[in-house]
Amino acid sequence: MDNCNSVSWVNGAPTSEVSISDRGLAYGDGLFETIRVQAGTPTLFDLHCKRLCTGATALNIAFDLEGFRQEVCDFLQGQTRQEGVLKAILTRGSGGRGYNPAGCDNPSRVLSFHPLPVYQNAPDINGVRLHECKIRIGDNAFAGLKHLNRLENVMARSEWQGTTCLEGLLLGMDDRLVEGTMSNLFLVSGKTLFTPCLRRAGVKGVCRELILEQARNWGFQVETGDYYLEGLAGADEVFVCNSVNGVWPVIACGSLDWSVGNVTCTVRDRVQEVLNA
Amino acid sequence: MDNCNSVSWVNGAPTSEVSISDRGLAYGDGLFETIRVQAGTPTLFDLHCKRLCTGATALNIAFDLEGFRQEVCDFLQGQTRQEGVLKAILTRGSGGRGYNPAGCDNPSRVLSFHPLPVYQNAPDINGVRLHECKIRIGDNAFAGLKHLNRLENVMARSEWQGTTCLEGLLLGMDDRLVEGTMSNLFLVSGKTLFTPCLRRAGVKGVCRELILEQARNWGFQVETGDYYLEGLAGADEVFVCNSVNGVWPVIACGSLDWSVGNVTCTVRDRVQEVLNA
Repeated sequence: MDNCNSVSWVNGAPTSEVSISDRGLAYGDGLFETIRVQAGTPTLFDLHCKRLCTGATALNIAFDLEGFRQEVCDFLQGQTRQEGVLKAILTRGSGGRGYNPAGCDNPSRVLSFHPLPVYQNAPDINGVRLHECKIRIGDNAFAGLKHLNRLENVMARSEWQGTTCLEGLLLGMDDRLVEGTMSNLFLVSGKTLFTPCLRRAGVKGVCRELILEQARNWGFQVETGDYYLEGLAGADEVFVCNSVNGVWPVIACGSLDWSVGNVTCTVRDRVQEVLNA
Repeated sequence: MDNCNSVSWVNGAPTSEVSISDRGLAYGDGLFETIRVQAGTPTLFDLHCKRLCTGATALNIAFDLEGFRQEVCDFLQGQTRQEGVLKAILTRGSGGRGYNPAGCDNPSRVLSFHPLPVYQNAPDINGVRLHECKIRIGDNAFAGLKHLNRLENVMARSEWQGTTCLEGLLLGMDDRLVEGTMSNLFLVSGKTLFTPCLRRAGVKGVCRELILEQARNWGFQVETGDYYLEGLAGADEVFVCNSVNGVWPVIACGSLDWSVGNVTCTVRDRVQEVLNA
């Protein structure tokens, strides 16, 4: 997102700086969430909080969930805009000795508010082309978490510019499908949605989580597993999703192409209803 | 290292804060070096600079080497202590849009000065025990670089506390030997030094680089490759090294043990001569 004109708090105080000794900077020792704000309210907030708790537990970072919820509420009340993106960073804070985090018990909370990203040509309606990223995502011990070690995403996203492709497809070292650079990937076959299980790499996105929870209520089956390019080639429909942009139909990736299909449109509209609720 | 009482510059100005929009914090989008300072002079500085250049090229971060060298020189001249550790961070700076770094052309330089770490019981003389880390290091696209995505090292180092073990052994997903949490690993067999090639994971340490460059001059052969626990068990001697602490003989890892051997002592003394030069 554009970082201009953002309003920000660090540990509850209005400032736009953190200490250079913060382990978020030193080691990427922390987590983040990007949350769509609609009518002054954080959308899918329970799911964002749940993922932050899961990450904090995995990294053994002390996290006061109720304090965080209240702080987000207070922060958003002070904003002049009612729509935008709230970025929340939770780091382990400053301290420890070298990599050793022992004794580092005061996490840092960073909240900032940004305009919603603007895309031309209504990608949610007309669909998007995916760049096939050359970089391969490595299996790692932190699969699923939205942590601050995001060099793979940065370098993947730097592989293309311009607006022909609005997202990139990321594969694992074994060429299995993982995700988009900033979104999760779904394949559609008949009335079933398939999405990579992300047990070894990737971020378990909040919009993906919503779809996994709600697909049956919307009339679809859903499966997670390891899928490969053959699965992509054979899919009836393909879409990507994240909690800021919702669902984008995928109309092309390399030499493959798809139509904007009915299942995708239904999922997109259901997700949009939740984001606009 | 202990971050108390440090003196620091950001982009040449005395301050201890960076913008929350810095991509170093947001994504770990940057690199760092920890450099031993002896008699007011950065040791192994050419090798540190070379690695920083290699990393900046790989990540496509603009890096003014001569400006950096001068800035480090100026920074150290302003320090009251003549010995310590200089930490230098180079991030891509603020800007770009989400993960996309396009247009983000003003890297951030962060310099800070810290006391040398102090260890009891002369680990360079008496050797150290290694904790066998449970976490496995994933293969990744940035093997060799000292980038800011260091969650694996942090969580590995959090696996043990106390002073029985001063370092931890990190294995890859296939259980091959990779490195220590803050050092590189060498096995000794006869007059040959073996160290993991780090083509798929790990940090190519500056002290490792020095040893690779100089081993023949010191009377040893040197090989890099993929080695496993059997190789560790069969080694005559084992040591770890980094550019702050020099060489530490390894005397135990799990049920394995070794003596502090002659080859290790020679390498340690040669490295020490360079660090003290």
